[in-house]
Amino acid sequence: MPLGERAGDKSESRYCGVETQFNDDMPHVLAFNLSHGSFDFVVAPLMDPAYQPSLMQKESGVSGVLPFAGSDLVLSPSQWSSHVVGKISSWIDLDSEDEILRVDSEITLKQEIAWASHLSLQACLLPAPKGNSCANYARCVNQILQGLNSMQLWLRIPLVKTDNDTMDVVNSSNLDDSWEIWNSFRLLCEHHSQLSVALDVLNSLPSANSLGRWFGESVRAAIISTDCFLTNARGYPCLSKRHQKLVSGFFNHSIQIVLSGEPVHSLPRINSDLAANNNDNNVDGVQKHPLRPYLDYVGYLYQRMDPLPEQERFELGYRDFLQSPLQPLMDNLEAQTYETFEKDTMKYIQYQRAICKALQDRVPDDKASSVTTVLMVVGAGRGPLVRASLQAAEETGRKLKVYAVEKNPNAVVTLHSLVKLEGWENIVSIISSDMRYWDAPEKADILVSELLGSFGDNELSPECLDGAQRLLKDDGISIPSSYTSFIQPVTASKLYNDVKSHKDVAHFETAYVVKLHNIARLAPPQPVFTFIHPNRSIDKSNNRYTKLQFGVSSDTGSAMIHGFAGYFDAVLYKEVHLGIEPSTSTPNMFSWFPIFFPLRTPISLHPGSSLEVHFWRCCRPSKVWYEWTVTSPSSSPIHNTNGRSYWVGL
Amino acid sequence: MPLGERAGDKSESRYCGVETQFNDDMPHVLAFNLSHGSFDFVVAPLMDPAYQPSLMQKESGVSGVLPFAGSDLVLSPSQWSSHVVGKISSWIDLDSEDEILRVDSEITLKQEIAWASHLSLQACLLPAPKGNSCANYARCVNQILQGLNSMQLWLRIPLVKTDNDTMDVVNSSNLDDSWEIWNSFRLLCEHHSQLSVALDVLNSLPSANSLGRWFGESVRAAIISTDCFLTNARGYPCLSKRHQKLVSGFFNHSIQIVLSGEPVHSLPRINSDLAANNNDNNVDGVQKHPLRPYLDYVGYLYQRMDPLPEQERFELGYRDFLQSPLQPLMDNLEAQTYETFEKDTMKYIQYQRAICKALQDRVPDDKASSVTTVLMVVGAGRGPLVRASLQAAEETGRKLKVYAVEKNPNAVVTLHSLVKLEGWENIVSIISSDMRYWDAPEKADILVSELLGSFGDNELSPECLDGAQRLLKDDGISIPSSYTSFIQPVTASKLYNDVKSHKDVAHFETAYVVKLHNIARLAPPQPVFTFIHPNRSIDKSNNRYTKLQFGVSSDTGSAMIHGFAGYFDAVLYKEVHLGIEPSTSTPNMFSWFPIFFPLRTPISLHPGSSLEVHFWRCCRPSKVWYEWTVTSPSSSPIHNTNGRSYWVGL
Repeated sequence: MPLGERAGDKSESRYCGVETQFNDDMPHVLAFNLSHGSFDFVVAPLMDPAYQPSLMQKESGVSGVLPFAGSDLVLSPSQWSSHVVGKISSWIDLDSEDEILRVDSEITLKQEIAWASHLSLQACLLPAPKGNSCANYARCVNQILQGLNSMQLWLRIPLVKTDNDTMDVVNSSNLDDSWEIWNSFRLLCEHHSQLSVALDVLNSLPSANSLGRWFGESVRAAIISTDCFLTNARGYPCLSKRHQKLVSGFFNHSIQIVLSGEPVHSLPRINSDLAANNNDNNVDGVQKHPLRPYLDYVGYLYQRMDPLPEQERFELGYRDFLQSPLQPLMDNLEAQTYETFEKDTMKYIQYQRAICKALQDRVPDDKASSVTTVLMVVGAGRGPLVRASLQAAEETGRKLKVYAVEKNPNAVVTLHSLVKLEGWENIVSIISSDMRYWDAPEKADILVSELLGSFGDNELSPECLDGAQRLLKDDGISIPSSYTSFIQPVTASKLYNDVKSHKDVAHFETAYVVKLHNIARLAPPQPVFTFIHPNRSIDKSNNRYTKLQFGVSSDTGSAMIHGFAGYFDAVLYKEVHLGIEPSTSTPNMFSWFPIFFPLRTPISLHPGSSLEVHFWRCCRPSKVWYEWTVTSPSSSPIHNTNGRSYWVGL
Repeated sequence: MPLGERAGDKSESRYCGVETQFNDDMPHVLAFNLSHGSFDFVVAPLMDPAYQPSLMQKESGVSGVLPFAGSDLVLSPSQWSSHVVGKISSWIDLDSEDEILRVDSEITLKQEIAWASHLSLQACLLPAPKGNSCANYARCVNQILQGLNSMQLWLRIPLVKTDNDTMDVVNSSNLDDSWEIWNSFRLLCEHHSQLSVALDVLNSLPSANSLGRWFGESVRAAIISTDCFLTNARGYPCLSKRHQKLVSGFFNHSIQIVLSGEPVHSLPRINSDLAANNNDNNVDGVQKHPLRPYLDYVGYLYQRMDPLPEQERFELGYRDFLQSPLQPLMDNLEAQTYETFEKDTMKYIQYQRAICKALQDRVPDDKASSVTTVLMVVGAGRGPLVRASLQAAEETGRKLKVYAVEKNPNAVVTLHSLVKLEGWENIVSIISSDMRYWDAPEKADILVSELLGSFGDNELSPECLDGAQRLLKDDGISIPSSYTSFIQPVTASKLYNDVKSHKDVAHFETAYVVKLHNIARLAPPQPVFTFIHPNRSIDKSNNRYTKLQFGVSSDTGSAMIHGFAGYFDAVLYKEVHLGIEPSTSTPNMFSWFPIFFPLRTPISLHPGSSLEVHFWRCCRPSKVWYEWTVTSPSSSPIHNTNGRSYWVGL
C-alpha cells in the first residue's frame, strides 16, 4: 500500500519496494512482503544464484529447465507486472578477465531478461558494473535494449562518496565517482530511453553538488540499505538529516524507494529473530515484517512533506514537457492563451507599480491635476495593461490618456467591449494596427508593452519596440526599460531523449519552452543579451554575440551537459523588475516557463575544466534566430546556422 | 604552365600558384604572373585592403560601388575560374574584442565571398584566425558554407612549431598548435566538405609526427614563403631537407604549392629591383619574374620525384574510395573478380612456398615416390591454388592427389575446362559443393584455402574452415594455419565526410574496403582477433572480444580520430606468411586494400591521453558481425549493435 497521502502528489514515489533473496515460492514472497509487510512491490531474483551455464553444460548434455523462480503460472500476469521487479543475478560480470565467467554472464543475463520479458515485468534491476570497465556489459545490454518490449532496465549504481582531493587531477579516471560509470554505460548505449538508474544509497553520502547531478538523470529507484539507518532515542530506525534531504529529493523526482538488507535494529515489540523470516509460511498478524519499522519511517518522511503548492500542482503536467515557443508576431494568439496569461496577477501588479513610479516621475504632485500623461500600450491584447495603467493613474492621482495599440483584430473586438463595459471611452483610444506601422496623432510620454518571451528578446520585443520608438517623446519612458537573457548549463537526460526521439538535426537546433524539473543545474546562470529601450545608441543593430565561461564546482565531479536552461529578467522601471532568472525571480508568476537550448551531442565536463559557450542573435529583414555552440572543453557544431531549424518571423 | 612531368601523376599538385598584392588591373596581374612568370594561378586580393564598411557609411549615405579588383568583365569567365583564387582581406578579425572591427569583418567577408561566387572562382583563401578563438569567424563561415555554390574555402593555417615541453600538460589549450585552431574551426563547421586548409609553410617546421596529421586532413594548398628558402652554393634558392621532404608529401597528396613573399635572393642574372615588379606594365621577355628562381626550384623538386610505380598508378582511382566488402559466401563472385585476383602472382608464390614446406614435412624425401598426399583446395574458385599445389608437388617431387571443392557452379565450369586443358584429370577431382556440407570419400593431409578478407576473418574464413575441418586428418595441416586482424587509429577527414554524406547512422556502422591514402596513421597497428586452424580447442566459439589501448606519440600534438584502419596477417605455414599489416606486409600484392571502421563522432585526443578501443566479433546461426566502440578519452555509442547496419551472411 502506498506510503501515504501527500496533497497534490500522484507520482510513482508513493510506492515503496523491498529487495528480497532468491525464493522459488513467489506467491509466498508476495504474500510475505506485500500483504503482510505492506510493501508495494518486490525486487526479487528471477534465477537461482547457483546457476551457471558452463557448469550446466558439463553436467548434462541435454539442455534442462532453467532454474527460474517459479513458473509464469504461479502468479497472475498482473501480479507479475505490478508487483515484481526482476533482479538479475548479481554474480554476473561481463567485463571480467575470466573469459568463462564473462561468457556465462552474458548467457545468464540474456536468459533472465528473456524470462522477465516473457512475464511482462515492468522493470529489471541490473547489478552494478564491477570494477571501472563496463564496455562489454554495455554492449550486451545495448543488444538487449534494441529488441526489448516496454520493460525498463534499472542499472544499479552505488552512491559512493567521491574523494574531493583527487578531483583536481584533470582527466584522471575518477575511480571513486560512480556517476562516471553510469555516464560511460549510457553513452555506450546511446542514452537509450529504457535504460535508467537505481541508486544504491549507502551509509556515507557524496557532496550535495555531486548528488545533485542525479536529478538530471533518469533515476527510477533508490535502494536504501538498512545500514544507512541511525537509531533514534526510542530505539527506532531513522535517517541522518542529509539522508532525509536526499529522500525528499527522491520523492520530489518520482523516484521509488526500495528497502534492502537485514534489519539492524532490535525493537522491543517485534521478534527480529530470523526464524520469523522468509521461511516461515505461517505468518500471523502479530509478527511484523522485519523491515516494517524502516518502511514506517520512510512513510513518515513521505507524509511529512509539505503539500504541493497550488501552482506546482497546476504545472505538474508540464514538467519536462517540451513546447515550441510562441510566435505572437507572426501568429495571432487565441482567446484561451489570452485568458491564461491575464490571470497572472503578480505580473500586472509589477507593471502597475512601475507605471505608478513613472507617472510620479513624469508629473510632480503639484501638476497632477493639470498635466495629462499620454500612455501607449503597444500590444494591448485584450486589455490587462490598459487596466493596470488606469489603476496606476487612479492610485497616483495622475491624469491619463491611453492609446491601446493591438495588431490582432480578434483581440481588438474584446478591447472595444472592455472599454465600453468599464466606461473608459473618454480615456482610452483603441488602435487596430501593428505598432511598427501606426501613424500616431501625438507622441507618448510612456510606452508600455509586454512582449517578452522566456528568453527575453525571443518574441522579438527589440524589433517591435524599435519600430514603436518613433511614437515616444525624446524624453519618454519605456516600460520595460531593459531586459536581459540568462543561461546556465544543465544535465537533462529526459529532455535530451525527447529531442533525440525525433531523429533529426532540426529538433536539436530548436529552443523549447519547458517547465524544468528533472534536471541538474550545473552552474549559476549568467547574462547573455541585454536590450535597452528606448534605444538611443547610434548602432541600432539587434544582432548580438556573447561568449560565456562556466565553471562547475569542484565537488560536483564530472558532469554531463545536455543543453542550456534560459531565463530573462526585465527592468520594468527603475527598481521594479520582473523575471524568471532563478536567483531573482518574481514569486507566484506563471506566465513564463524557462527556455531550453539543446546540444546535439551532450558534452562531458571533467572536474576542473571549464565550459565555453557562444550565443548569437542574428537578424535578417524577415526573421530573427539564435545560433549557439560550445568551444571548450571541445568544439561542437554551430547549432541552427542561418536559422535553418528554428527562427522567429518578423 | 605545370611544374613538369611526373610519370603517372595527373594530380592537382602539378600546378603552382603565387600570392599577389592588391591590384585592380587584373589582366596585368595575370599577364605578369602567368604568361610572363609561368605560374599556373594567382592568389589575388579581391577587395582594396583600405576598404572598411564602417568608414564607408560615415563618408557617404548612399551605398557606393564596392572597391573590388576590377569588374567581372576584365577577365573572361574561364580566366577568373581557372587562374584566380580569391584572397579574402587579411585584416578581417571576426573574433576581435572590438565590436566595430568584428562587424566590419563580417560584412567584408560576406561581400567578398559573394563577389567571388559571382565570378565562379574555384576557391577563396580565408585569412588565418587571429588569436586562439575562432567561434565567431567559424559561425560566419558556416553560414556562408550553407548556401555556397561549388567554391572551396581554404582556411589559411600557419604551420607553427609546437613546443613539445608544453605538451605534457593535459587539456591545457595548446596555444602553439595551429592544428587545434583548425580542428576547432572545422568542428564548428561540422566537417563541411567545402572547407579545407591552406598551410602556411614557414621557416621552422614542427616535428614529423605533428606534420603527419595534416595528411589526414583536407589540405588543398601549401603557401611557401620565400623566407623558407636557403641559398645554395651557386646563390640560388633551395629548401632544407626537412622542407624538401614536406614538399614531396604535398606532391604525393595532391596539394598545390603557392609561392609567397618578396624575393630574398639576389641573383646575378635577374634584376630583383622592385621597379621590375607589378607596377611595370612594359614587361619584356628579358626581365624575369622576381619569384621565378623559387618556382624553378619547386619545379625541380617535382620533376625529381620518382615516377609512380605501376601498381600505384593502377590503384590511383581507388584512393580513398569506399567500397563495400565482398560477401563471397552469400554471393557468387563474377568472372571479372576471379580474373583480377588470379593475377596477384605474389600471393600464389607464397601459397606455393607454404605447400612445398608442408609436403616436405608430411612426406620425407625417401618416401617421396611411394606416399601420395591428399590435398583439398576448399574454395578452389577457377583453380589458381590447384595450380600452385601441383607446382609445389612438382617442385618437391611429392606425389599428390587433389580435390578441388567449389560452391560456385559458374567457377566449377571453368575448373573443368582448366583440368582438361592442363591434362590434370588423373590427379585432380572437382567437387561442386559447399565445403561445409561435402561428404568426402577420404580425409585430407593438407587443406588449402584462400578465404581471407582485408580484416582476416571478415569473409567468414573461421566458419568455413570450422565446417571443413572434418575433412582433415587429425594430424593434417591447414594452410593458412592462422590469421590475425589488426587495427590502428587514423585521421581520415575525406573518408569521414564520404560516410557522413549518406546522412544516416547505418553508413557509420559499416566497414569499408578502401585504398587508404589521404590519412594520418596515429599509432602502430595492434592485433585484434586471431584464429587458428585446425581448431583443436574445446571452446569452438568464433565470438571474440578485444580491448586495446593506443597511445599517440607525444610530439604529435592533439589528434582527431575518424576511425580505424584494419589489416590482416596470415601464417600460411610455419614461417611463410601473407598479409597487409603495414610493418610486415607482403610486397607487390594487390588482392587486398585495408578495411576502414568509421566512428559516428570523431574523437579528439589530447596529447598524453590514451585511446581505449573495443572490438567484438559476434556470431549467430545466420550471420556474423562486428561491434566496436571507444571508451577513453570518452565513451562513444556502441557501433553496429546486433549487426543492425553491417553483417556478413553465413
